[in-house]
Amino acid sequence: MSELINNSEKRKELLKHMIQELHQGKAPEAVREQLIQLMQKVPYGEVVEVEQELISEGILDEKEVLKFCDMHTEALEGQIDQSNAKEVPENHPVDVFLKENKELLKVVQLIRNEIKSLIEINATSLSDPLLKIKGWFNNLMDVDKHYRRKENLLFPYLEKLEITGPPKVMWGKHDETREFLKAALETLEHSGEISPEELPSVYELVFEPALNAVADMTMKEEEILFPMSMDKLTDSDWYDIQEQTLEIGFCLYDPPAQWEPDGIKTSSKEKVEDLNRIQMPSGSFTKSELLAILNSLPIDMTFVDKDEKVKYFSQSKERIFDRNRAILNRDVKLCHPPSSVGIVEQILEDFKSGKETNAPFWIQMGGKFIHIEYVALHDENGEFLGTLEVSQDLTEKRKLEGDQRLLSYSKNTEDE
Amino acid sequence: MSELINNSEKRKELLKHMIQELHQGKAPEAVREQLIQLMQKVPYGEVVEVEQELISEGILDEKEVLKFCDMHTEALEGQIDQSNAKEVPENHPVDVFLKENKELLKVVQLIRNEIKSLIEINATSLSDPLLKIKGWFNNLMDVDKHYRRKENLLFPYLEKLEITGPPKVMWGKHDETREFLKAALETLEHSGEISPEELPSVYELVFEPALNAVADMTMKEEEILFPMSMDKLTDSDWYDIQEQTLEIGFCLYDPPAQWEPDGIKTSSKEKVEDLNRIQMPSGSFTKSELLAILNSLPIDMTFVDKDEKVKYFSQSKERIFDRNRAILNRDVKLCHPPSSVGIVEQILEDFKSGKETNAPFWIQMGGKFIHIEYVALHDENGEFLGTLEVSQDLTEKRKLEGDQRLLSYSKNTEDE
Repeated sequence: MSELINNSEKRKELLKHMIQELHQGKAPEAVREQLIQLMQKVPYGEVVEVEQELISEGILDEKEVLKFCDMHTEALEGQIDQSNAKEVPENHPVDVFLKENKELLKVVQLIRNEIKSLIEINATSLSDPLLKIKGWFNNLMDVDKHYRRKENLLFPYLEKLEITGPPKVMWGKHDETREFLKAALETLEHSGEISPEELPSVYELVFEPALNAVADMTMKEEEILFPMSMDKLTDSDWYDIQEQTLEIGFCLYDPPAQWEPDGIKTSSKEKVEDLNRIQMPSGSFTKSELLAILNSLPIDMTFVDKDEKVKYFSQSKERIFDRNRAILNRDVKLCHPPSSVGIVEQILEDFKSGKETNAPFWIQMGGKFIHIEYVALHDENGEFLGTLEVSQDLTEKRKLEGDQRLLSYSKNTEDE
Repeated sequence: MSELINNSEKRKELLKHMIQELHQGKAPEAVREQLIQLMQKVPYGEVVEVEQELISEGILDEKEVLKFCDMHTEALEGQIDQSNAKEVPENHPVDVFLKENKELLKVVQLIRNEIKSLIEINATSLSDPLLKIKGWFNNLMDVDKHYRRKENLLFPYLEKLEITGPPKVMWGKHDETREFLKAALETLEHSGEISPEELPSVYELVFEPALNAVADMTMKEEEILFPMSMDKLTDSDWYDIQEQTLEIGFCLYDPPAQWEPDGIKTSSKEKVEDLNRIQMPSGSFTKSELLAILNSLPIDMTFVDKDEKVKYFSQSKERIFDRNRAILNRDVKLCHPPSSVGIVEQILEDFKSGKETNAPFWIQMGGKFIHIEYVALHDENGEFLGTLEVSQDLTEKRKLEGDQRLLSYSKNTEDE
């Protein structure tokens, strides 16, 4: 018996045998008990290897593995040995996945509790609670980004290591989960049609499959996929994954900092930029989107760099103070009338030295109220980067009274 | 005699001889008359070839050519044949250079007229007029960008064609002109020390050399450099020059449109991007400058692309409505409470269809006046690109009264 437990080959053989038994129709509970009896813990790597072998040897095809995937999960629940698993550093891509799972499970729990209590108290009016539940299902749809990061960022690394089975099986489960969530949201689109009597069956047939699929996947990830991936991928692989994470996005969770592994070569740090999008810490845009954004703001701006050269100005439709491109790369001191250039120099000096970070001015001209603000720019390390001039015509906005709320929009357009 | 005029070799020999005569000290006026007598027009290309030959054959070194450059100009004034010169298309880089020259000459004329009239009327108070003149000299400093575009964009193409002499000679003249302009500006820094009696000699010794150098160069460019360059460079070369022009900047003139030559391969259109700077039609910035700009604006923004996915939000220090990165790539409809999502959909639909381009809202909360504006974004061709949400806290700016002008700045900081 101890020989069996200490021998990886034999353990895997047994595992394979058990999965085949499940395939042949033996009840999961029986197999599970047998499993517990035979061995205390199955190292997680072996589970994956067995899955892979079953697929390569043609004993099961990927569809069949997918079909039995949930049953395996049930059979192996809590039985996978993670004692050898590497510790996950904070803000590491796997740490982010794990934190996202926590958020997902919170939402799953909220929905389950709400519906169960609705059923328990025999609620008669469902419209408000179902609107709330719809909001939570909206949140759960964020899992799509979690899955896409696995599919597009993590799985390719596993496939390079010839671990192809588990990713394919999981991808199938992702798609299933997406379908369940869509079905739940479609049902909630017509939540008015759900009567209190129907709620229990709608819950069982539509909501719970989605909730269960989301929750199950978190377990599969945490027991198999993440420990295995931590084992196989290098820090440099994970760094590349992190770099591309924002292109797909986070799920219900926003890591407070970047993971900064030691000894990652800058070459690897540089190589992953998508040249068509400008990636910022809080999102991205194409150059043509950026151009439209900068020129559609209700403000005008002019940027002077740390060497006091005019480098950029926005081209809003109605600029307050005209700018033409001849000023670009001109020394800002040469842009001002000699009579006021001393003050401009004073402001820049105060910004550079850190004495001031902001200099606001306002003037009334031709019945208009114009606000002009100079703002010192710094990078994340506090290095001075230059000065931004921001001007806006606040005449109309200063006249506004009371409230005009979002809900008034449709009424407004009807008036036209 | 007609044999001589029609024979390029002989004509060049004569030209060379004349330049050597100038070198040996014959007065320009004598040489000039001789030149006019001998031939009506010298094709501009030959002037350049002769300069080049004199340098390569070691008859003159570049310094000597530089020294005689002005004398040649004087001798050849108006005598260079441009009848074979190519026509310059509108907004072509050479067209831009020519328009800049016009602006430069206007400023030169303004300064000359002002000073001459000051001397004529024996003006007693010079402080205001000299401040005005300083502003004009500030403008003339823009010629630095005109010269840098020649030096860094045009000359390399000529050098590739082994036309090395004239660029070097011209570059020397540029540096001389820069020195003259700096001297003029330094003198004007202490304009209070210039007495009405000294004005004529300051003009002759300091201002006029700078003005003359600027004006002379426009002539050299228009009679020799530009016609020759039009002849030698391909449309593709000029296109590349145009693409890089904004990196250096224009001089006192902003072309109303891009020059769009027929048949330029997009490969050549794409190759010239400086990867470290994001180039916009009205200037450029590095990514870290852009980040500082977007996060230092007195407004918050959130960008939703044309597919209704949240793509970016700014990270100002004091955001009015918190955003976290989990919303990135989320469908905007899933970001709103189900109760108001219908209105959001209505706004997006109206923006997409072009029915509306702007939807402003405002609310008063906790004593604050918050303005929220949705703006439809379009590219230059009117294609819908998405929606921008702009929020700002206008509480303080709505309370401002009267004026606070730039000139009040130093007083403010003294108060602190």
